[in-house]
Amino acid sequence: MRTKAVRAVLGLLGLALIHAAAAGRSQASGDSYQALVDRIREAGLADEKGFDLLKRITSAGPRLTGSPEAAAAVDLSLRLMKELGFAGVHAEPVEVGRWVRGDIAEAVIPAGGDRGRINLSVCALGGSVGTPEGGITAPVVEVRSLDELTNPGRTFEGMIVFFNRPMDRRLADPFAAYGGAADQRVGGASAAARRGAAAILVRSLTFREDRNPHTGVMHYDEGVRRIPAAAIGTADADELSGFIKKENGLSVSLRMNCRDMGRVISSNVVGEITGREFPHEVILLGGHLDSWDLSPGAHDDAAGCAAALEALRLINVLGVRPRRTIRVVLFMDEEFGGTGGRAYVRAPQRRGERHLLAAESDRGGFMPIALAVGGRDGRARDKLASRESLFKPLGVSSIVAGGGGVDIAPLVEQGTVPASVILNSQAYFDVHHSALDVVASVHPRELELQAVILAALACILAQEGI
Amino acid sequence: MRTKAVRAVLGLLGLALIHAAAAGRSQASGDSYQALVDRIREAGLADEKGFDLLKRITSAGPRLTGSPEAAAAVDLSLRLMKELGFAGVHAEPVEVGRWVRGDIAEAVIPAGGDRGRINLSVCALGGSVGTPEGGITAPVVEVRSLDELTNPGRTFEGMIVFFNRPMDRRLADPFAAYGGAADQRVGGASAAARRGAAAILVRSLTFREDRNPHTGVMHYDEGVRRIPAAAIGTADADELSGFIKKENGLSVSLRMNCRDMGRVISSNVVGEITGREFPHEVILLGGHLDSWDLSPGAHDDAAGCAAALEALRLINVLGVRPRRTIRVVLFMDEEFGGTGGRAYVRAPQRRGERHLLAAESDRGGFMPIALAVGGRDGRARDKLASRESLFKPLGVSSIVAGGGGVDIAPLVEQGTVPASVILNSQAYFDVHHSALDVVASVHPRELELQAVILAALACILAQEGI
Repeated sequence: MRTKAVRAVLGLLGLALIHAAAAGRSQASGDSYQALVDRIREAGLADEKGFDLLKRITSAGPRLTGSPEAAAAVDLSLRLMKELGFAGVHAEPVEVGRWVRGDIAEAVIPAGGDRGRINLSVCALGGSVGTPEGGITAPVVEVRSLDELTNPGRTFEGMIVFFNRPMDRRLADPFAAYGGAADQRVGGASAAARRGAAAILVRSLTFREDRNPHTGVMHYDEGVRRIPAAAIGTADADELSGFIKKENGLSVSLRMNCRDMGRVISSNVVGEITGREFPHEVILLGGHLDSWDLSPGAHDDAAGCAAALEALRLINVLGVRPRRTIRVVLFMDEEFGGTGGRAYVRAPQRRGERHLLAAESDRGGFMPIALAVGGRDGRARDKLASRESLFKPLGVSSIVAGGGGVDIAPLVEQGTVPASVILNSQAYFDVHHSALDVVASVHPRELELQAVILAALACILAQEGI
Repeated sequence: MRTKAVRAVLGLLGLALIHAAAAGRSQASGDSYQALVDRIREAGLADEKGFDLLKRITSAGPRLTGSPEAAAAVDLSLRLMKELGFAGVHAEPVEVGRWVRGDIAEAVIPAGGDRGRINLSVCALGGSVGTPEGGITAPVVEVRSLDELTNPGRTFEGMIVFFNRPMDRRLADPFAAYGGAADQRVGGASAAARRGAAAILVRSLTFREDRNPHTGVMHYDEGVRRIPAAAIGTADADELSGFIKKENGLSVSLRMNCRDMGRVISSNVVGEITGREFPHEVILLGGHLDSWDLSPGAHDDAAGCAAALEALRLINVLGVRPRRTIRVVLFMDEEFGGTGGRAYVRAPQRRGERHLLAAESDRGGFMPIALAVGGRDGRARDKLASRESLFKPLGVSSIVAGGGGVDIAPLVEQGTVPASVILNSQAYFDVHHSALDVVASVHPRELELQAVILAALACILAQEGI
C-alpha cells in the first residue's frame, strides 16, 4: 500500500511536468524529470510492449533488403506506426540492391582415403556471385589473414582460399574481436581473386563452436574478378582445418546459386510526435528494418526498431507533448548497402529540418550497460551527464563519448549529434547474421529497458534542446 | 602478428610481477597489475574453463542439502580441487536438515459447472510438511499480502490461502522485486495457519508467465500449526485467480508427500593457494554447492562455485604465488538452513586464521556489471577503487559499497570485509529455483568474466592486504 501511494505522488509530479510543458512554461526541474522517467519505466516494464513490437516486426520473416519480405515489413511498419498513434507516418523511397541467396549452398569434401564424403555447413556471403552450375572443385588452402595472400612464395592459383582466423576470444569486448576478424569476410574474395583463387570460404564470425554459418556483407573491389564467397560454421571450419593438415591437396566442391538481381525501390519508414514549439528540430530514434535472410533478425535489428518504436509509444501514451519533434525512423538497407541512411538525408522532407541528435539502435536487444553520446563540443553529453542519476537505475552505468552507426552516419556528417545505448554484447555474435537470431533469444525486460532509456533521453533533449 | 608481439611483452611484464612477488620484494606497480589482469583475462576467455567446471558440478544433479546428490557433489568437488592442483583440499563437516520432496505434488480443480478437471502446476516449497495421504480439498481464498490475513472480517478457517501478489515488474532491479514478494513464500504458511487455514499456495517468484513452479525455502513459526505450502506456476496462478472470481467457493485438492527426514552430516569443501608470507591471512572466494532439487542449479549456484574455482585455477596456472592465502570455499546448505556458513567460522581449522575479505558469488553466471565491496571503514573498497581501470574493461562499471550473502554473513559479523560481483539479473528469476535453471541458460563468456574479476580482486588484495 505504501508503494502505491508513493507512485501516485510520483505520477502527479510527472503530470505536472507534462502540464508545465504543455503550457510552454519554464524548463522542467530535475525532480519532475525523475517523476517522468519513473512513469516511463513503470509503464514500460509493466507491459513489456517492446517485445510485442519485436514479434510484430519479425512476423514479416527475414527482411533482406529488396526482398518481398522487406516490402511487407515496410507496409507492416506503416500500419503499426498508425496504430500507435504516431503523427506524420509515411514511407520515403530508397533505391537498394537486391541479391538473392538461391536454394543451393553446398560445400563437400569428396570421399577419399579412409573417409566418406563430408558435408560442410556453409552459406553464401551477402553479395557473392554464385558458382558455375556444376560447382567449383579445387584444392583448399588455409590462411589466417589477408596479408598471407601477398606471400610470393605461396600458390593460390585456381584454389579455394579458406580464411580461418577466429575472432580473438581473449578480448573482453566482442565488437573488438569482430572488428579484428571481419576483414576476411568483407575483403577476402578480392584479395584472393588477385592471386588467382577460384573461390573463398570464411570462418564464421562468432565465438561459439557450432554448425551455423554466419552470413554478412562482402565487397568486390572494382576491376577484380568476382569469385564466390561462402561462410562456414566454426565447428566445420575446425574440422576442415584438421583435414587439410592431414591430407595434402585436399579438395572441396563448392556450389551456390546466389545472384545479383539489380536495383529495386524500397523505403525508410518514418513516424513522430511533432514538436509543439519547434517542429523542425528533430530528436531521431532509429533502427534498421532490413535483416539478413537466415532468420527473422530478432536482435539484428528488429530489436533496435522495436526499442525505438516502443520509446515513442511510451512517450505518446504518457501524454508527453514535447517542445521539439521526436521521430522514429526505421531505415532500410543497413546490412547490404547503407543506402537508407543516405536517402534519408537527401529526401525532400528534410528541407528546413534540423536534427539535433540521432540515436541509432543496432546492437540487439540485450541489457543496457552504458550510453554513448557524441558531438564535437560534447554539449549533448554534458547535458545528459548532468542527469546521469536518472539513467543509472535503468542500467546505464555511465554516459561516455561515442555513439553512431551506418544509418545515422550521413546525419552525423552534417553535424547531428550521434548517440547509442551500449548493450551487453557477450552473446550478440552467437546469433548475429545466423539462423539463431530468433525472437526467443531476446529478453523482454532487457529490450524494454533500452526503450525506456531512449524515451527518457528523447524527452529530456526534446524539452531542453542541445 | 602485431597483436601477438604486444601480448608477449605483456606476458613478460606479468612474469616480472610474479617473480618480484616470489622474491618478496616491493609492492607491484599499477602497470604490472595491468599485465597480470590481462593475462588472467586472456587465459580465462581463451579457454572458458569456468563453463567446464560448471558442467562438472552440475553433473552431480540437483544437490539439495542432505541428499545423496549433495554428498556426491562434495566428493566430486574434493576430487576436482585436487585435480586443479589446489593446496590443503579438505571437507569440513556441517550438520544440515534433510527434507525430501517425495514423488507427489498435485493441485487439482475438480470438474464442475461447464468445465472439466484442471491440473495446476505446483511444487512443494522447501521445508513444507506434506498433506494427509488423501490430500486436502478446501475452498480457495486469494490474498495479495500477509496483511490481508489480519482482516477480522474475512474467514480463512479450513481454507486454502492463495498468495497471489506478483513480483513488481515496474522495478528495474529484479532483486528488489523479489525481495518485495518473498514474504508470501517465506512467512505465508504460519500467517495463514494462525487464521486456521488448511494449506497455502504461493504464486511463483518470477516475472515470466509460464507453468514452471519455483520452489524456495519457507519457515514455520514456533508454536504455530504446520500446514502444507506449495508454489504455483504464474500462468496457473492467473488461471486460478480467474476461476476464483467466476466461481464462488471454488475448491482445490492439494496432495503432496514431501517430508522432513531429520538431521544428517554434510560438508563444506575447502581448497586454496597458501600464502607464502602470511598463510593465515585469507582472501576467501565462495559459492554454495547445494541447490534446489528441481534442476541442477546451474545459475544457483553451480555458477558461483565454478566462478570461484575458476578464479583460483587461473591464479594457479599463471604461476602467481600470493603473499596471503587465496581460498575457495564451496559452502553446503545456503538454500535450506544457512548452516554451512556458520559451521565454517566455528571449524577448528579457523583457529589463528584471519579472513581479510570474503567474496560470495550467489547471483548466477550472468554478465558482471559492478563490484560491491563492504567493510566498516571502506578501506578495501578504496584500495580496489584506486585500481578501477583494471576492472572496467571486464564489465565492472563501478566499485560500490555493498557485498555479502548468507554464507559469508558469519565471517562478516567477525569483521571480514564482504564483496560480491554484481551481475545483470534481468533473467535470473526466470530460472531461479525452477526446472529451468539448467546449464544451457549460462553463457560461458559471462561466467568466465566473473571468474576473471574474482581472480584479479584476489591477486591484488592477497598482494597488498587491506
